[in-house]
Amino acid sequence: MFSGVVRSGSETAVVDDLRALVGDRVSTADAVLDQHGRDESSLPPAQPDAVVFPRTTEEVARIVEVCARNRVPIVPFGAGTSLEGHVLATAGGICLDMTQMDRIVRVSVPDLDVTVQAGVTRKALDERLRREGLFFPVDPGADATLGGMASTGASGTTTVRYGAMRDNVLGLQVVLADGRVVQTARRARKSSAGYDLTRLFVGSEGTLGVITEVTLRIYGVPDTIGGAVCSFPTIDAAVRAVITTLQLGIPVARIEFLDERAIEALNAHAGLDLAPSPMLFLEVHGSTDGVTEQMTEVGEIVTEFGATDYRSAIDPEERSRLWRARHDAFYASLALRPGSKAITTDVCVPISRLAECIVATRRDIEEHGLVTTMVGHVGDGNFHVMVLIDPDSAAELAAAEAFNARLVERALEMDGTCTGEHGIGLRKMPYLAKELPEGIEVMRQLKRTLDPHDIMNPGKMLGLEPDPSSAIGS
Amino acid sequence: MFSGVVRSGSETAVVDDLRALVGDRVSTADAVLDQHGRDESSLPPAQPDAVVFPRTTEEVARIVEVCARNRVPIVPFGAGTSLEGHVLATAGGICLDMTQMDRIVRVSVPDLDVTVQAGVTRKALDERLRREGLFFPVDPGADATLGGMASTGASGTTTVRYGAMRDNVLGLQVVLADGRVVQTARRARKSSAGYDLTRLFVGSEGTLGVITEVTLRIYGVPDTIGGAVCSFPTIDAAVRAVITTLQLGIPVARIEFLDERAIEALNAHAGLDLAPSPMLFLEVHGSTDGVTEQMTEVGEIVTEFGATDYRSAIDPEERSRLWRARHDAFYASLALRPGSKAITTDVCVPISRLAECIVATRRDIEEHGLVTTMVGHVGDGNFHVMVLIDPDSAAELAAAEAFNARLVERALEMDGTCTGEHGIGLRKMPYLAKELPEGIEVMRQLKRTLDPHDIMNPGKMLGLEPDPSSAIGS
Repeated sequence: MFSGVVRSGSETAVVDDLRALVGDRVSTADAVLDQHGRDESSLPPAQPDAVVFPRTTEEVARIVEVCARNRVPIVPFGAGTSLEGHVLATAGGICLDMTQMDRIVRVSVPDLDVTVQAGVTRKALDERLRREGLFFPVDPGADATLGGMASTGASGTTTVRYGAMRDNVLGLQVVLADGRVVQTARRARKSSAGYDLTRLFVGSEGTLGVITEVTLRIYGVPDTIGGAVCSFPTIDAAVRAVITTLQLGIPVARIEFLDERAIEALNAHAGLDLAPSPMLFLEVHGSTDGVTEQMTEVGEIVTEFGATDYRSAIDPEERSRLWRARHDAFYASLALRPGSKAITTDVCVPISRLAECIVATRRDIEEHGLVTTMVGHVGDGNFHVMVLIDPDSAAELAAAEAFNARLVERALEMDGTCTGEHGIGLRKMPYLAKELPEGIEVMRQLKRTLDPHDIMNPGKMLGLEPDPSSAIGS
Repeated sequence: MFSGVVRSGSETAVVDDLRALVGDRVSTADAVLDQHGRDESSLPPAQPDAVVFPRTTEEVARIVEVCARNRVPIVPFGAGTSLEGHVLATAGGICLDMTQMDRIVRVSVPDLDVTVQAGVTRKALDERLRREGLFFPVDPGADATLGGMASTGASGTTTVRYGAMRDNVLGLQVVLADGRVVQTARRARKSSAGYDLTRLFVGSEGTLGVITEVTLRIYGVPDTIGGAVCSFPTIDAAVRAVITTLQLGIPVARIEFLDERAIEALNAHAGLDLAPSPMLFLEVHGSTDGVTEQMTEVGEIVTEFGATDYRSAIDPEERSRLWRARHDAFYASLALRPGSKAITTDVCVPISRLAECIVATRRDIEEHGLVTTMVGHVGDGNFHVMVLIDPDSAAELAAAEAFNARLVERALEMDGTCTGEHGIGLRKMPYLAKELPEGIEVMRQLKRTLDPHDIMNPGKMLGLEPDPSSAIGS
């Protein structure tokens, strides 16, 4: 294997070749390798042998060619906010840090679309778009790169209204495992021209190629944004209020569930003063009249389901503060137990089964005495449990993993998925095989076709055996 | 080649094997072969050697195994409403008529989703859903099967609001070329579990497998539906009104353009009395107040762009009549020139280029003295020109094809696509290669992987050379 060879100090031909391509934008410094060997999961770090910082698609193609010639693994790296170990260099190799590919290539106001290099972050894009009265809605919480978000098939709080990355990527530029550069689609709003290569690469987690450019749908900032919060006597009541809201076709832009432990975490972390009971955070977008009408309708529904304190006249400042707190729920949860790490679950079930799934999961948490918080993009049927563990306790880690396994099993029994938005990465590989037993075989066929030597983020997603020919060939 | 062998009268082992599987649901009768050798394009018919009528996925799998063993082509057939020759059995083989797979397997009101066998038609589904106050929005005009609509990546008049098939298929059951049955996804609203197999098969035109079941998103019938029509002094003004409407985020459900020739056709065919000038047909969905507000806003916009006769207080009956007429535009156009056939174009361009594209196309039509009508799903940047030709005139056919080639060239120069919704089929193969020159190579790799002997709808989409091993092997 390549791993360790470069690090051992003797410059190999691979690093020399990469230096010839990009000069000093190659690093084998310990601090840099260390930084690129971690993500936000609780998985053990795994460093690459070198980190390269490309600036153009052309450079990426040349770097991939060097790696392909030498059968060296390539791990694309964005903001490093993966929760499933996608960016850990478990087979060593070259980490492609995409953050210097941070150019917003083109904004088209009349077409409501934008093309960005893969390393542009969500917040950087948002800042640029705000000037034009536009925004990009997909919001996974973290300030991830758009390339990373496309790679994991990210979604988030606004997916119930605006869709996930899958729905908002119009086209990609991708460098394949042999260095070919492919544009997956033209810029038309829709097309039936051949296989949907765009969506083949969205969610492929770097295992089929390196995404270098992303073309995205964007949206006009709504005239009016309304926010509301309310508390429920039970989780079940909260979820049933959500189902009714969606069935009536009320186009809520966000509808987020938080359990009482998550509310406690937010209160402590963000200095809020919310009642510690199951809550919904809501947002509606539209014209002033439309927002007022929707807020009233939602108010009637949640009251019917026992909400006690529906507050819809939230001013923009308080709304921002609430959503900022919601976005920080991950960090707020960690702060509930200082020094802890989190195992984060990500199941998504048909919404008719959501209340049942959440209630059974709560029972499981209590039976096993786990320390958790729970938040949910409940409009999509997706919720996360953060299990706070002592990272030095093997027993706690095992208990959390066993809990996650039971939760996935429960979701699959309900015809749901093991991952709504975090992806498979390293830890969910056995679950993908359970979820789509025939499908994973097709995925493996596709992977072997487009990456026959398994150099693109090897060892992730598909549970393939390592390619015996993969080794340093310099 | 298989073609001709069965038809010549001697029953081959293939047909015997198929009879053993499905009894008398195999036909080699001339009338049946003839009916299954045509679509709604102007392409010459091409009959299969036999037609089989499966009723279950299991039967389809067994039929495909027989064909695979004997290297016999398989052409799935739904309602036969393709406009690009998808269902023509140009290499002979077995036509799989899916129309007896017409069972609505499951309707879930709380989940707003439905699973249907591939042969269920759009109208049959609509009838079933209406009872529940639900509807499926994708509406290509023809009463196509849902399997066919998934296969061609269909869309239509409501795509601007509800998306295309790509956006509304939650999962598929597919029989692959070796008889494996694959479920592409679970029933969760969203998932990041591996490659997006669902969207790999949506739009694959039967070339990767046979779609046997489709799970779809469905929607609550809106409280209120508002309809409006208006005439414009110029095409350019009409298109610019559309762009402004979309930019302001007004969620129109339909926004259809018709040129004056299309209006003339509708007037004659449907007994309407519309002013023969460029028109928009609009529809908005929502609450009563929301619809009123949107209709007023749209009225202000179109008036600003010179619309002379904005009528928004259309009663439901007139609205139905107008949309029925719009849906029949294809047949109404044919009636403009009795005995004619139509060559239908299908480009889609970024909406910022749409007015320019349409105006240049009109100039081209006039310069070449073609008889045409034009309708457009202009909210998506997609429009169709129906060129009415004498089917016996090689010169007219050539002129129409040359016009289409120029139009595609124009669309590609504008970063658009050769097909917004009709698919590639037989006639657009050279254009796909121009549109996605690197992409088509990736598509060919995928096709060779999943269908190594090229038995699934061979000769379509990808311009592959026939597989020399494909022949009757009985």
